[in-house]
Amino acid sequence: MRIARFSIDGNVAFGAVEGEGTPESGDLVLDIIKGIPYADHELSGVKVPLNKVRLLPPVLPSKVVAIGRNYAEHAAELGNEVPDVPVAFFKPSTSVIGPGDSIAYPSFSSELHHEAELAVVIGRMCREVPKERVKDVIFGYTAANDVTARDVQQREKQWARAKGFDTSCPLGPWVETEVDPSDLTIQCTVNGEQRQLGRTSDMIRSVADLVAHVSEAMTLLPGDVILTGTPAGVGPLNVGDEVAVTIEGIGTLTNKVIKRG
Amino acid sequence: MRIARFSIDGNVAFGAVEGEGTPESGDLVLDIIKGIPYADHELSGVKVPLNKVRLLPPVLPSKVVAIGRNYAEHAAELGNEVPDVPVAFFKPSTSVIGPGDSIAYPSFSSELHHEAELAVVIGRMCREVPKERVKDVIFGYTAANDVTARDVQQREKQWARAKGFDTSCPLGPWVETEVDPSDLTIQCTVNGEQRQLGRTSDMIRSVADLVAHVSEAMTLLPGDVILTGTPAGVGPLNVGDEVAVTIEGIGTLTNKVIKRG
Repeated sequence: MRIARFSIDGNVAFGAVEGEGTPESGDLVLDIIKGIPYADHELSGVKVPLNKVRLLPPVLPSKVVAIGRNYAEHAAELGNEVPDVPVAFFKPSTSVIGPGDSIAYPSFSSELHHEAELAVVIGRMCREVPKERVKDVIFGYTAANDVTARDVQQREKQWARAKGFDTSCPLGPWVETEVDPSDLTIQCTVNGEQRQLGRTSDMIRSVADLVAHVSEAMTLLPGDVILTGTPAGVGPLNVGDEVAVTIEGIGTLTNKVIKRG
Repeated sequence: MRIARFSIDGNVAFGAVEGEGTPESGDLVLDIIKGIPYADHELSGVKVPLNKVRLLPPVLPSKVVAIGRNYAEHAAELGNEVPDVPVAFFKPSTSVIGPGDSIAYPSFSSELHHEAELAVVIGRMCREVPKERVKDVIFGYTAANDVTARDVQQREKQWARAKGFDTSCPLGPWVETEVDPSDLTIQCTVNGEQRQLGRTSDMIRSVADLVAHVSEAMTLLPGDVILTGTPAGVGPLNVGDEVAVTIEGIGTLTNKVIKRG
């Protein structure tokens, strides 16, 4: 099931996405969900056209834990070695935006990069999850853009500002609860031109490895998100660009880059 | 005013602390606050002895942004240079515990360290705060322990696990809204023996500098916390230890170290 979060007439609701197409097309309908998708819920049967509502970030994470250098070709393109242990860092809740929202180019950077990533959405409060049980704590998957101020990342040893600024974590367009994450294409285009193309099967550590690694240290809450690293092909974003992350079997997350107002 | 958060008979409330002494002494009384301390509120006049309630973390931060290497002597003791720009990293909401709560020694470390720090509590939603206006967005100050798995910090390039594990961010015992943070002693004892002693006047960057620096990148929300770095003297914590952080004019935050259950 594809579960979107949206606002309509000032209310926020979750809905099951029906039909095939992009969020912008007129081909999708939302069946409004009664209850919370993470717990007991049912479809109301009340349907609204998806292109008549405003999609929101599909989850409200208390934290996003992101993993760096999880694709060998990407580590190499930035001159980094593949680390012995995963590189884990946080993106705060204030960095999250939804599909169609704008990425605001921060004033303190002049080199913003896109990083297309598969995002894991946690469904249950958990800690110290063994690899073989990780599937039980996952609610589903969505697309993410780990937008990075590359120049700031190179200047500042820890990445709170380089990867945690407002609007640096687009998520969406919805959560797919049924896809197998082990071998999906991940693609990033800028203004329609392909920049990144990879397969999740090229991840150095699998989704199960990463959730086990992160949860060894910290409690994960429903809605928390784990980003799984970006494939090769990262590159600049400029004001006016439209960046789209497409993950096979999930959907396309599109955002425009604007000047921070 | 000193504002504590506490639970009593299953309810959570804020209270103004009256009297002088440690949280454990019988000398303090809480005047229960009607409303939310960050906004309009008044004292109810209903008073409870502080040692009859359970103190909670005095704030519920959506994020804690911590600063590394902000005291020259501490940078030197770990063999680090003073950075050109502040080292900023996150501790997640799941790492926060309150006064009297236990620090649970994580399974993946064998070298836990205390780091006594002055914590700034944000009072208003803000971004891009100029230095000279920082005082307008600060609600008050509390004590913090930036508990660190030093061995993990040395192995893992980014510090999400080393400094973000559950119970790694004790905060408390309350928020002092009226203290001047510019020249306070910060002390850390372990089992009554002094380990760290410094003065906030030795910070490389001031509170105003740090809040301006962090808020240049990201929105801060009421209750968000900025940790301002630790003075020299960091050292090991072992299971069974009692660690206390005392900041002049604020109070003492005490926590015991236990084995993670």
